[in-house]
Amino acid sequence: MTIKISIDCMGGDHGPSVTVPAAVSFANREPEAELVLVGLEEEIRAQLKKHKASSHPRLSVHHASEVVTMDDSIETALRRKKDSSMRVALRLVKDQQVQACVSAGNTGALMAVSRYLLKTLHGVDRPAICTILPNQKDGPTYMLDLGANVDCEPVHLHQFALMGSALVSAMEGKPRPTIGLLNVGEEAIKGNEVVKQTAELLRADHEKGILNFYGNVEGNDIFEGTTDIVVCDGFVGNVTLKASEGLGRFVKTVLTTEFKSGLLNMLGAVIARGAIKAISRRLNPSRYNGASLLGLRGLVFKSHGGADAYGYEWAIQRAFDAAKYDVLSRIATTIAELMPQADTPDGANGGSGEIVNTESTQQKTA
Amino acid sequence: MTIKISIDCMGGDHGPSVTVPAAVSFANREPEAELVLVGLEEEIRAQLKKHKASSHPRLSVHHASEVVTMDDSIETALRRKKDSSMRVALRLVKDQQVQACVSAGNTGALMAVSRYLLKTLHGVDRPAICTILPNQKDGPTYMLDLGANVDCEPVHLHQFALMGSALVSAMEGKPRPTIGLLNVGEEAIKGNEVVKQTAELLRADHEKGILNFYGNVEGNDIFEGTTDIVVCDGFVGNVTLKASEGLGRFVKTVLTTEFKSGLLNMLGAVIARGAIKAISRRLNPSRYNGASLLGLRGLVFKSHGGADAYGYEWAIQRAFDAAKYDVLSRIATTIAELMPQADTPDGANGGSGEIVNTESTQQKTA
Repeated sequence: MTIKISIDCMGGDHGPSVTVPAAVSFANREPEAELVLVGLEEEIRAQLKKHKASSHPRLSVHHASEVVTMDDSIETALRRKKDSSMRVALRLVKDQQVQACVSAGNTGALMAVSRYLLKTLHGVDRPAICTILPNQKDGPTYMLDLGANVDCEPVHLHQFALMGSALVSAMEGKPRPTIGLLNVGEEAIKGNEVVKQTAELLRADHEKGILNFYGNVEGNDIFEGTTDIVVCDGFVGNVTLKASEGLGRFVKTVLTTEFKSGLLNMLGAVIARGAIKAISRRLNPSRYNGASLLGLRGLVFKSHGGADAYGYEWAIQRAFDAAKYDVLSRIATTIAELMPQADTPDGANGGSGEIVNTESTQQKTA
Repeated sequence: MTIKISIDCMGGDHGPSVTVPAAVSFANREPEAELVLVGLEEEIRAQLKKHKASSHPRLSVHHASEVVTMDDSIETALRRKKDSSMRVALRLVKDQQVQACVSAGNTGALMAVSRYLLKTLHGVDRPAICTILPNQKDGPTYMLDLGANVDCEPVHLHQFALMGSALVSAMEGKPRPTIGLLNVGEEAIKGNEVVKQTAELLRADHEKGILNFYGNVEGNDIFEGTTDIVVCDGFVGNVTLKASEGLGRFVKTVLTTEFKSGLLNMLGAVIARGAIKAISRRLNPSRYNGASLLGLRGLVFKSHGGADAYGYEWAIQRAFDAAKYDVLSRIATTIAELMPQADTPDGANGGSGEIVNTESTQQKTA
């Protein structure tokens, strides 16, 4: 079975110099993948040549004359740059030329253009952004929303839980993944009104056997792996994700500085290089790159704008897996079955009107 | 100048076996400190004897017959256990027998009893919990609120900024500490309504020269040290703090596991023990122990319930510094000067009605 994925080669801080080698490497190791490289043809071909993949049988180039930059407004991405690599890559999803799209472009623009072109699934009011984070149990914790919705009602958090559950059950092969509701304490009386009402909706689903609701979880549970999925609004999710990235970089600075201070420390580091390599690998945020935009009528994956080729390849991997495990129709079915009351006109769903970037500004401009 | 501090010796997971040695060690190295050890006299004396401090001239014992446990409801702490070590230690602050109080007890109970006994400062609607976190600039980032208020209006976040500014200017000797408003992006158009309106209040203060408002900051800025103070509501603050604690423990597990896997790695770790010691020290959360309950008519510091003696001693240090640098009257003056419109009856101020624990449940029950 061949899975076709469009790659917005111009998106992100580094453009084709990262996206093309990542695509080449992925195509080389995944014989079922066929990638459509979208963007300025000349630049893409130059990179393909550099990486000795000019005539790769499963890599094709699709020219797009414009580029959505990190500074472009959503308005510009949506209304002006109609031939941008981002938009053309998404149109290939809409036209069913490919099964998924990967972009490292501006999150707000990517979400807006995706919603405009693909529309939301029946029963989904607002798409959400979902990523994975590492945990103590050596598994992934799926967390959503990460910034698509800064003001959420219980009904939205409820939909996030349903979508997250369908995603994890497909991606991880877990029939009943556990769902935690992010809160300031475990007890049911904790939290603000939105969270309390959401918990009631989730408990009702749990009792009906629809969802596997664990209950409230706290911030530390994300990295302890208490539940497979952590649900929260986009404000809390965004701040938490970025704080974790910030702490990660702080730890990295401390480790690097200390192991380079003095000959003995440097010698010890060389001798224990196995451990240091394993630590770098386990804590490398690139391994967790690739957030999914859930709730759309198509699979869209967002890579971190500052990702290197290794990280970008992980985002392609996630898109590939999602297509392979048929995430889209599983989410559509879950939502349709469980929310028969949903009757919002297709694609006319509203939203918070604002989508925030899931990346720190510092990282973007670095 | 002598500074007297009451210690709720029974609070926390370990009680006198941690609080008393911490007090002894602090009294030994700080000649200006006089500590009143509050709790079950027999247990405290046994610990004093064990640590050869039975007749220390600056350590006294104040008996209190009851103990507020981690599981006690706020109601119990407030109405039933009137002779608890927590309450008696706080009453010493109210009666001006001491200048500050330190407790590792249940956060919710501590805040409730503190508010009941001490009342809030004129002009403060809701007290907030403020802690420090390490940052890339090797300085502390002060963050508030961390869980005292899960639903905040702009006026509350505004007050947090004023209190935080007064605290940092006193504790760090910075006349105009920078204030960041935690948000999902740096641009003024980002965020939810509460944050946007808060930014307007802070910008107005900045223009009048009252506050040094940097603008919006993102999660990563906490650990990058972009601003001296980060202001947020208690829900976001609590989740972010606990997520950071969880990530910290995850990193520690990874480091420990890898350096213990195999002889070469263990040998390397021994040789680079200087680096490993420095890393442990720099990343040790105990160094940042001691959160202040701001906005009360008295200085109250909360230690992490699971803190060891080293960590608890840091909480005493913070209380000592706050008394020494006259944090209380500086906050009172700042608030009174800047919010002359505040006319809430003394001590009759409302609140979110809920105070959440600033510690992870896992930690507590560990």
